[in-house]
Amino acid sequence: MDTTQLADRILTGDRRALSRAITLVESRREDHRQQAAELLDQLAGSGRQALRIGLSGTPGVGKSTFIESFGMMLIGQGLRVAVLAVDPSSARSGGSILGDKTRMEQLGREPAAYIRPSPSQTHLGGVARRTREAVALCEAAGFDVVLIETVGVGQSETVVAEMSDLFVLLLAPAGGDELQGVKRGIMEMADLILVNKADGDLKSAANRTCADYTGALRLLRKRPQDPQGFPKALAISAVETDGLTDAWSEMQTLAEWRRENGFWDRARAEQARFWFERELRAALLARLDTPAARAEMDRLGRDVAEGRIGPAIAAQQMLDKLDSA
Amino acid sequence: MDTTQLADRILTGDRRALSRAITLVESRREDHRQQAAELLDQLAGSGRQALRIGLSGTPGVGKSTFIESFGMMLIGQGLRVAVLAVDPSSARSGGSILGDKTRMEQLGREPAAYIRPSPSQTHLGGVARRTREAVALCEAAGFDVVLIETVGVGQSETVVAEMSDLFVLLLAPAGGDELQGVKRGIMEMADLILVNKADGDLKSAANRTCADYTGALRLLRKRPQDPQGFPKALAISAVETDGLTDAWSEMQTLAEWRRENGFWDRARAEQARFWFERELRAALLARLDTPAARAEMDRLGRDVAEGRIGPAIAAQQMLDKLDSA
Repeated sequence: MDTTQLADRILTGDRRALSRAITLVESRREDHRQQAAELLDQLAGSGRQALRIGLSGTPGVGKSTFIESFGMMLIGQGLRVAVLAVDPSSARSGGSILGDKTRMEQLGREPAAYIRPSPSQTHLGGVARRTREAVALCEAAGFDVVLIETVGVGQSETVVAEMSDLFVLLLAPAGGDELQGVKRGIMEMADLILVNKADGDLKSAANRTCADYTGALRLLRKRPQDPQGFPKALAISAVETDGLTDAWSEMQTLAEWRRENGFWDRARAEQARFWFERELRAALLARLDTPAARAEMDRLGRDVAEGRIGPAIAAQQMLDKLDSA
Repeated sequence: MDTTQLADRILTGDRRALSRAITLVESRREDHRQQAAELLDQLAGSGRQALRIGLSGTPGVGKSTFIESFGMMLIGQGLRVAVLAVDPSSARSGGSILGDKTRMEQLGREPAAYIRPSPSQTHLGGVARRTREAVALCEAAGFDVVLIETVGVGQSETVVAEMSDLFVLLLAPAGGDELQGVKRGIMEMADLILVNKADGDLKSAANRTCADYTGALRLLRKRPQDPQGFPKALAISAVETDGLTDAWSEMQTLAEWRRENGFWDRARAEQARFWFERELRAALLARLDTPAARAEMDRLGRDVAEGRIGPAIAAQQMLDKLDSA
């Protein structure tokens, strides 16, 4: 199947074509990268835009249950939902935990849902770039909502926010003095804070925590891209599917306002530029990551270590070698 | 004066030639960079090694006074001392605070001392790389000790440690519960902690603080490059020149032990390799930092932002442009 055929099938919503295309963007083979870039370029003309929702939460906060309940609710409204993941641990272990179908059994069986685990790559940057391209593929395939999940460990949240229209932070009920646990930088990225587990014994704690975050959010500097009342905190229960329609309604309100006031397009334009520059730097540095280049760097590195040549001269020789290759 | 003449003069200890050479390594002009690399390569054969001492301390801890007193003591022993600086703020402001002669008036007048402020560059990486080359020049010029100072704000300490044989942390007397203020990562880099201001009213506080750090250091994991008893904390007074000969004696003991046990050479070899790889990456990325490249990136960035082309394709086009230039 050539690139144009693959693009056509994705545009008809063919799931197997979509999976094949995502495998293509995740590949590190040079010819695959080339084909992936062409494919993305062809699909860019589709003009289709999903609502991209970035979702972060630490392990144990109920992220899988939330995605399952929230996703099923969206499907119930006739929407098509894709779930992708940026798993920073996959950059280390090569394994992938997030976006696993088995964690979201009900959603995984729905024809209107598409779940894809995090790509395994050696760098978080690699994971993120590939996921960003998978998001674009899901948009072209006609999904209405793309959920991009990550765990709350810093760097990965920043890159997920750079590929999302809305950023949602999922939190657990906590004692008032635990509020400090959420880093200020993460709070400032959030458009919506959802305090999960507002059910059973934890219900009142969840409501108190929600009130605490509402207060904390009020202290943050007003951002131009927010209408009155945002960012906002809500208490929900993923298990009892309580508060999910409210959360969805808030997301829609926010997205609509940003669309109407030019912030949606502006944010997407800035994000595209961000990924261009990131892609460019990564592609340039990737020239050092071929077997031939690594062998040459090892050789020069030994010469440098043994004092036969200085670091700067060695770097110059390496660059000359790259250019003549 | 050509490169060989400049190298010869540096080897005779000519201070003006040294200053000229440091200006050369600090220059961002391509022909200067080329000449600097050649110069460093010629001088690498001198086989001269100074004791490179990295020195970090937050503002107000008495760093200038320490360098002045410690430097004068070394000169009194017949040693030649160079003082260089890695000032992370110079990467932002373009100004340079550290290594200023006016802060070390007495030392600045000594013929056996050479003081050079931090280069101003746009990135900390640039400041650090240039300082590392200045250190190599000072070694070739026959200095016995090269002090490389920085302020304790994280990143800059790591790069200073990567160009030092010993890393010394200068601290002020503090209440016991302030011990936490020193980041664990910084503590783990230190070979010697000097608690300054062990004089007058602060003397007993300094001794207590020193005991606290001695305890804290004992809890750190033993490093293979340390003899028994290291890392170590000492209380000193830079103003009253008290404890400085003890500190120097500890530094010599440590350096001697590492030399005899192979850790000195191994550390220098690893550092050289580190700077080679860093230099290489920086040189590769510098190709994006020419006026022509920036103009092209702006143009492509606009196309990407306006959706006319995807980030990956745009990155590929930019690379093709670079290669054909």
